[in-house]
Amino acid sequence: MKQLIISGACGRMGRMIAQEAADKGFEVAAGVDRAGEAYASFPLFPHFDSLPAADVLIDFSSPSNLETLLSYARQTGIACVLGTTGYTDQDLAQIHSAAQALPVFRSSNMSLGVYVLRTLAKQAAAMLPGFDIEIIEKHHNQKADSPSGTALSLLEAVKAPDQRPVFGREGKTCRRQAGEIGVHAVRGGTVPGDHEVGFYGSYEVVRLSHSAQSRLIFALGALKAASFIAGQPPGLYGMEELFASGHHQV
Amino acid sequence: MKQLIISGACGRMGRMIAQEAADKGFEVAAGVDRAGEAYASFPLFPHFDSLPAADVLIDFSSPSNLETLLSYARQTGIACVLGTTGYTDQDLAQIHSAAQALPVFRSSNMSLGVYVLRTLAKQAAAMLPGFDIEIIEKHHNQKADSPSGTALSLLEAVKAPDQRPVFGREGKTCRRQAGEIGVHAVRGGTVPGDHEVGFYGSYEVVRLSHSAQSRLIFALGALKAASFIAGQPPGLYGMEELFASGHHQV
Amino acid sequence: MKQLIISGACGRMGRMIAQEAADKGFEVAAGVDRAGEAYASFPLFPHFDSLPAADVLIDFSSPSNLETLLSYARQTGIACVLGTTGYTDQDLAQIHSAAQALPVFRSSNMSLGVYVLRTLAKQAAAMLPGFDIEIIEKHHNQKADSPSGTALSLLEAVKAPDQRPVFGREGKTCRRQAGEIGVHAVRGGTVPGDHEVGFYGSYEVVRLSHSAQSRLIFALGALKAASFIAGQPPGLYGMEELFASGHHQV
Amino acid sequence: MKQLIISGACGRMGRMIAQEAADKGFEVAAGVDRAGEAYASFPLFPHFDSLPAADVLIDFSSPSNLETLLSYARQTGIACVLGTTGYTDQDLAQIHSAAQALPVFRSSNMSLGVYVLRTLAKQAAAMLPGFDIEIIEKHHNQKADSPSGTALSLLEAVKAPDQRPVFGREGKTCRRQAGEIGVHAVRGGTVPGDHEVGFYGSYEVVRLSHSAQSRLIFALGALKAASFIAGQPPGLYGMEELFASGHHQV
Repeated sequence: MKQLIISGACGRMGRMIAQEAADKGFEVAAGVDRAGEAYASFPLFPHFDSLPAADVLIDFSSPSNLETLLSYARQTGIACVLGTTGYTDQDLAQIHSAAQALPVFRSSNMSLGVYVLRTLAKQAAAMLPGFDIEIIEKHHNQKADSPSGTALSLLEAVKAPDQRPVFGREGKTCRRQAGEIGVHAVRGGTVPGDHEVGFYGSYEVVRLSHSAQSRLIFALGALKAASFIAGQPPGLYGMEELFASGHHQV
Repeated sequence: MKQLIISGACGRMGRMIAQEAADKGFEVAAGVDRAGEAYASFPLFPHFDSLPAADVLIDFSSPSNLETLLSYARQTGIACVLGTTGYTDQDLAQIHSAAQALPVFRSSNMSLGVYVLRTLAKQAAAMLPGFDIEIIEKHHNQKADSPSGTALSLLEAVKAPDQRPVFGREGKTCRRQAGEIGVHAVRGGTVPGDHEVGFYGSYEVVRLSHSAQSRLIFALGALKAASFIAGQPPGLYGMEELFASGHHQV
Repeated sequence: MKQLIISGACGRMGRMIAQEAADKGFEVAAGVDRAGEAYASFPLFPHFDSLPAADVLIDFSSPSNLETLLSYARQTGIACVLGTTGYTDQDLAQIHSAAQALPVFRSSNMSLGVYVLRTLAKQAAAMLPGFDIEIIEKHHNQKADSPSGTALSLLEAVKAPDQRPVFGREGKTCRRQAGEIGVHAVRGGTVPGDHEVGFYGSYEVVRLSHSAQSRLIFALGALKAASFIAGQPPGLYGMEELFASGHHQV
Repeated sequence: MKQLIISGACGRMGRMIAQEAADKGFEVAAGVDRAGEAYASFPLFPHFDSLPAADVLIDFSSPSNLETLLSYARQTGIACVLGTTGYTDQDLAQIHSAAQALPVFRSSNMSLGVYVLRTLAKQAAAMLPGFDIEIIEKHHNQKADSPSGTALSLLEAVKAPDQRPVFGREGKTCRRQAGEIGVHAVRGGTVPGDHEVGFYGSYEVVRLSHSAQSRLIFALGALKAASFIAGQPPGLYGMEELFASGHHQV
């Protein structure tokens, strides 16, 4: 079994990774979290100090931890999976730099299915020029931002340079313009996350969608990334490389 | 066979009614249209003058014809099905007044399925207090108004007095407020018209939807209304009465 | 806070009820389970013996416990919520008999949303005679039975006496017969449970669906039933009475 | 404008092609149909005799016409679009042989969207090994065969050698087996044709679907194929070549 360190071990994602790790061939060597208390058999540390040796580190904490995390990783040569979002350009530059010395995996969405959706949506947009594209995403009623980051990344994947999003329509004379891509944020209940990209043509519609039943998919995706990245040469890796490697199947 | 007069006979709806009439037990005695030319075996008249006797008149023309139409109907006692939309309050008062002397059927949407959706959505809203409601409608890319009139009538059917619609969401801090009902207008291709009312609760979602494959449903609904209204006593009738009568089955 | 006894406390449903009880105004006084060990602050008993006093008992165990459960309930007068399925006719007769002395709530599906779907589907079937009905249900790949019990109860709710289900179609000449209701069991992944009743007419389709995100909905439904049944006069209660009482809103 | 000959001109597809031809840059030089009568301004011929010169021939008639059609095409060198289905292996061999002398386009489904769905579904199956695949198709209640030919071609596109379809599930112990692909034929009303390929994984589902609003899509697809094939060197062409050429965009 490979040894795993979980950064952000007491957060929702950290706990899920701890819970699923053994199933995916990992032993949790240690958790790191500034706050929170031990909830499982592995030791919990407040800082990146005196940690036991391990093969991979998975981080779902906060961009504010990036510097100490990367410094620890450079010292130990540990492979890193970064599932945290909200990095600044400066943060990203640091990650690039670390990836010259270490294998680093980063993705803003750890779900394999979302990556597949984005890949297929991009291809559909290329195959169906002239079709109108509209994106619908649905999330729980506590989500602060609209549309979701994933919806925006889908938009990025399908949009042509002369297209632009609209985030709602209201009025007596608001006929759809040629370059519009509607992005609709539905909010309600406890929906973990649904995304649909629709291509509307003359008398036919092609629809591609992803539905998450649980945030577990992010934990499972991160563990697949960990399994892939351990033992790779230094470099910056993402979902594309994970799929090319075949480790998404494991 | 009952005799039918089609007002607006050369319009899209008029032609569909002409095409479906025989199948539904009607002979078209005459068409009325200011413009257009004869396209079938029945005679076409530019005005409500010298028309042959008939049992029912179906109107899909324009509110501007209302006055002469009702005047003709009062003279002849013919039952009327009014499928035209866009009436003013004054127009509606005239219709009410005519309905004291004549059987008059009026509905802003002649689709039986849309009426069923509205009825069920209203009941679902009553049964699922506390569930978040969101409406999604989809129409072709040439539709001028958003959201659709049908979506607004669904909103009316489900909304509590303290609820209000939002027609899109965008921003970093736009968490859903308790009284919000999202109404999302998707536009693309040639979609004849889809409407979905979703009720989002804790870990469950109830969805009610109607999908139109063709505007034929409005013609077929009007013919059912015609079949119902012929021979009724004077009065103003609508979908509720049509369903109560059982004529929606015919 | 009302005092709650959970029968089948160590099962999946029992644990969920324990987890959600406080949120819904209940203190768990005790759990009953033949096997399993204490996992929370309340005491666990192997039998219906020496239990502390309580207001309501929720049972998600097995029909084999019914006799001792009802005997205990008769002795103590405790209100009962029976969420167990698989009762024989003899079991049901026992429940009826106990309900003469006690308030007893029973439903084969504790989800409020599923009850709403069944109610609306029954009404839609009445409003849309002549429409073809087809049911699609989706569940995870470990489910043993097809179609689901809920799909069969939906079938029961919508079917006319002269209609009969078909559970799949294959062949060159298997045109849909007038009295058929297709019931399609989709199986895959970890889907908690989706049910859709579709009404297909001439150029329009009405679709009613329920989607469960988690089995939590059964726990939450049982707690609402518990909240409703506590303090009721003896009798047999079900979802219809729960909704009529308004306790489904709490 | 290019000159077009429509074989099967009086059939449903032939009439649609005639109606859409001008819009897509074609003048109908002649129609060929054994039965039926002239319904438009172009001349109708009962056989492939004495036809005016033309650039492309589109055939939606019957395999029984293939021999005379190909003989006529070889004589005149006209490019052919074959939209007829139900060819035998012998027929296909004849087509291959003719394609050495003529540009011939053949596809069992002329819809561009269905081709895109099949392409994406194949790719999704490759990217999501281990996901359970289930196909749902919906058609009107007059369709004789189940599942649809398109559903079977989607099955072919996604299935691994060790996988096999099941066409329905019923029973108390019919848990999904690893190699199963459920193919579900929903039949009702007047649905022109919906196809969905679902990939069900752990806590996530990817769904790809195509919905036809009208058979017009087959006419429009055939006209795009005609526009592509006119002027090509001899050879057998299909949807893949049409998309590669960019003519699907026109």
